[in-house]
Amino acid sequence: MNYPSNIKKTYKNSTIYANRGMDLEDDLNLSNEYYILNNQALIYKKPTPIGVADVSYNTHGKIINKAYFKEQSTLDYNGLYRGKYIEYEAKVTKNKTSFPLNNIHLHQINHIRKVLEHQGIVFLVIKINNLIYILKGEDFINYIDSNQRKSIKYEFIKNNGYLINYSYNPPLDYLKIIDKIYF
Amino acid sequence: MNYPSNIKKTYKNSTIYANRGMDLEDDLNLSNEYYILNNQALIYKKPTPIGVADVSYNTHGKIINKAYFKEQSTLDYNGLYRGKYIEYEAKVTKNKTSFPLNNIHLHQINHIRKVLEHQGIVFLVIKINNLIYILKGEDFINYIDSNQRKSIKYEFIKNNGYLINYSYNPPLDYLKIIDKIYF
Repeated sequence: MNYPSNIKKTYKNSTIYANRGMDLEDDLNLSNEYYILNNQALIYKKPTPIGVADVSYNTHGKIINKAYFKEQSTLDYNGLYRGKYIEYEAKVTKNKTSFPLNNIHLHQINHIRKVLEHQGIVFLVIKINNLIYILKGEDFINYIDSNQRKSIKYEFIKNNGYLINYSYNPPLDYLKIIDKIYF
Repeated sequence: MNYPSNIKKTYKNSTIYANRGMDLEDDLNLSNEYYILNNQALIYKKPTPIGVADVSYNTHGKIINKAYFKEQSTLDYNGLYRGKYIEYEAKVTKNKTSFPLNNIHLHQINHIRKVLEHQGIVFLVIKINNLIYILKGEDFINYIDSNQRKSIKYEFIKNNGYLINYSYNPPLDYLKIIDKIYF
């Protein structure tokens, strides 16, 4: 993974708008690879769970002939940083004024509550208006518990979230922010 | 998952010997479900990563038409317990005198070293001679670094590992052992 991520990013942002969600994922994956290579943290994206309906075998091993994607019951990324458990979910919205809460499943909201209870670090990485924010699990849960809205106002994210700036390598140095918020 | 796990286990142990590896996995999965339900810990088995070669869409969503299994670069289980990061791998051997090291991939061994470095709890759950042991990551790495063997002698596991006894529910109450070893 040695291609210059900035070039790739520019290309993507300017042309493939449908892939914006993947773009954030790619940048986080590249950043996590960078952190692992530099022995800063061990954070991985969990594979998407699948239900396998049919398999067969050939000389190369097992082949899946039919399967479907299942929902993750936890958040997408988890791992270990400075002796602490860390878990997060990355979400992109094209909305400009709010982050729709149907982006996060109910079982994931419950999972966030539990991670907090068990003293883990948990947060959302939200891309909105082309800016990337970390929203702490605590602030997210407080927002949900204190009003009936079906979305989080952009104002709330701007005022309570922490902006991650793009850099060359890692593309999203979010651990810098984590250091400030949690340590 | 409300079926009585003891009945299931008795059935399996007495008849389907080929499934012994799955048996240990099932017991760990049931135990982890129990821990989650009782709010004791948040430990999940990671989905097996797959490479998707062909997808299509129908009215129910995305269907995978061809895919293959990939190797996990981390260990199979990870999560959060009493504020600590925890990760482990479950392995079964039919060997009676030793645990063959080709059961654990080189990148997994390196990953175990890194988890230790980053102050996580990491161990192996080894089923050998129908007994289930926890072998601490520290002891496992010491063994590997101090001799050239291609397997771990059963004697070493017996003397350095911690036996997990079967119980009714959870079937394998391994957190009881973790409490003693790590807290």
